[in-house]
Amino acid sequence: MPRVKNFNAGPAALPLPALERARDEFLDFAGSGMSVMEHSHRGKEYEAVHDEALALLRELLGVPDAYDVLFVQGGASQLFAQIPMNLVEKGRGADYLVTGAWGEKAFSEAKAATAMLGASARLAGTTGEGEGKEKRYVRAATAADLQVSPDAAYLHLTSNETIHGVQFAVDPARPFPDAGKVPLVADMSSDFLWKPVDVSRFGLIYAGAQKNIGPSGVVVVIVRKDLVAAGRKDIPKIFQLRTPAENKSLYNTPPTFGIYMIRNVLAWLKGLGGLGAMEQRNRAKAGKLYGVIDANPGFYRCPVERESRSVMNVVFRLPAEADEERFVKEAKAKGMVGLKGHRSVGGIRVSTYNAVEPAWLDELCAFMQDFAKRG
Amino acid sequence: MPRVKNFNAGPAALPLPALERARDEFLDFAGSGMSVMEHSHRGKEYEAVHDEALALLRELLGVPDAYDVLFVQGGASQLFAQIPMNLVEKGRGADYLVTGAWGEKAFSEAKAATAMLGASARLAGTTGEGEGKEKRYVRAATAADLQVSPDAAYLHLTSNETIHGVQFAVDPARPFPDAGKVPLVADMSSDFLWKPVDVSRFGLIYAGAQKNIGPSGVVVVIVRKDLVAAGRKDIPKIFQLRTPAENKSLYNTPPTFGIYMIRNVLAWLKGLGGLGAMEQRNRAKAGKLYGVIDANPGFYRCPVERESRSVMNVVFRLPAEADEERFVKEAKAKGMVGLKGHRSVGGIRVSTYNAVEPAWLDELCAFMQDFAKRG
Repeated sequence: MPRVKNFNAGPAALPLPALERARDEFLDFAGSGMSVMEHSHRGKEYEAVHDEALALLRELLGVPDAYDVLFVQGGASQLFAQIPMNLVEKGRGADYLVTGAWGEKAFSEAKAATAMLGASARLAGTTGEGEGKEKRYVRAATAADLQVSPDAAYLHLTSNETIHGVQFAVDPARPFPDAGKVPLVADMSSDFLWKPVDVSRFGLIYAGAQKNIGPSGVVVVIVRKDLVAAGRKDIPKIFQLRTPAENKSLYNTPPTFGIYMIRNVLAWLKGLGGLGAMEQRNRAKAGKLYGVIDANPGFYRCPVERESRSVMNVVFRLPAEADEERFVKEAKAKGMVGLKGHRSVGGIRVSTYNAVEPAWLDELCAFMQDFAKRG
Repeated sequence: MPRVKNFNAGPAALPLPALERARDEFLDFAGSGMSVMEHSHRGKEYEAVHDEALALLRELLGVPDAYDVLFVQGGASQLFAQIPMNLVEKGRGADYLVTGAWGEKAFSEAKAATAMLGASARLAGTTGEGEGKEKRYVRAATAADLQVSPDAAYLHLTSNETIHGVQFAVDPARPFPDAGKVPLVADMSSDFLWKPVDVSRFGLIYAGAQKNIGPSGVVVVIVRKDLVAAGRKDIPKIFQLRTPAENKSLYNTPPTFGIYMIRNVLAWLKGLGGLGAMEQRNRAKAGKLYGVIDANPGFYRCPVERESRSVMNVVFRLPAEADEERFVKEAKAKGMVGLKGHRSVGGIRVSTYNAVEPAWLDELCAFMQDFAKRG
């Protein structure tokens, strides 16, 4: 079957050159007579890949020397618990800014993790209106939404809410908040490496790989070394961030094939011109899509406020659910898949991660114009 | 480069048919026009793979209905902490039987995990002689080595010690211990599925995939449902075993490609005749190797007592370290790799996991005979 246009929210499309490279050397990695996944994680062949992936992350993001770059397991969902386990103390809890479903989950797990250690997690701000499943998150937070405790161990936010299509720092009017001396911790799972980021503004950045940089099963953590050093020591070693930091993420066997795929994706990204070029490409892709939505106001409707519209996950509604079903079905017949909105909110969601080709968006936009015209 | 004979201790050799299947459909999984790792974990294409992997585990091992089969992340090293976090209570700690380096690590993490929750972990038996790095583990434990607390939450053991080459239940004289009503918890990472096992004798079995059943990044857990139900609820959701149990291991994004590879390996294993056939094949492989060692008593020396010799990791020494270096080097020139013993104990280690072909052992044994003759 020819390659489909994959708009999945994650696991998501990967760059074809990164996949082809893996396929071509799948049985014989670097002339070693075995697959990369059959190599020891302590052997020089795998270690070269591991080191290259870490170096590419540092290079692409311009990570300062004062930060560690780590690979860990368990998904961002595990980090929801593991980060507070490392950073809170009795009397020094964690603050959470919630702008969507993933922020809610992070806050919920932080409550359990901190309670286990005699500390606490606190809601420092939210853009959710109303209660329960109907909560609407239609914008990134501003300073007015936020009250940070000056003694908080950190302030946590979700830079891009995949389900609600709400993103920080796309528009200058919705920058990452200023938490003063309180370190900013950001879950960047669904917008990691979409554009250059000033890492020095954060205490910790983490991202599950399966949206923008690789397959599922690996999480990248970028963390200030002083936070690692000050982290709790009374939790199991495997959960201490100092364990991967002190062992180059090779304390126990890492998910070697996933890290290899990340290396392939990052090499492709660098070849395209790095994060500056990627930002242009991503803004153009999403811009085209929002353009079609706004050009058909009677038919398509994006619930997200203009300044907070995500460049990674474009969500919108059609006049009726039946129209949405027909939209998904017709698009699929044209080789465009992964367009159904998250089951908790419905509608359409177009994920336009780095690996999504601009030409796919052209095709989707043409389809959307035609679909709206037909009504 | 032609395929090498890979005796790595883990990540380890995978069956060629399982790799070829993955290579052939790497860019177009099941005619879907995308790689399996680009599929949503909630889509029907991936879910079919996920379900098949779980069903094959149940079928091959004959897992009783009273048990859950789970996929989790973090490696066995994470389970070292996660299992006590689920199962201990105040006043009801965990017992550990230590027969090698991995048992030591499991016990050490259990101490940290239980202390965090106001409980404790206790050494119920060990076969380590002396202290520190020089500790020698040369046999599996017997009833005489063990004192189980009748009120322990569980008794933990490592069924096969990868570094020390010591294994339970190879010889009838070294069966898995009887802990009475205390549930037996076994880390089977390096001998999972090497032969049929009576699952009903265990409360919980866990195994990192990267030895016998797949790439690194996935852990299989087989656990009695009543233990899951009684597990602690005051730890983060992501660490509770009920979370994967209640969500078919799809609570958060699982390592989909790793689980897909496990499916491929299990399908291959079933095609070879299942665990009974695999046991015959594995015993024959290891038997040949120990035969060469015993036939050259002045040259090769296996430190492990006969009844406890591992069928998965055959460790032995040569007269001098210089001989061992030459052995590894000459074998490598003949396409046999991964033979160096673990850095903590030295010597030679031949890992003969399921995917290691009997013909590779024939070749290695011929080389060993010749090498000994040359001296």
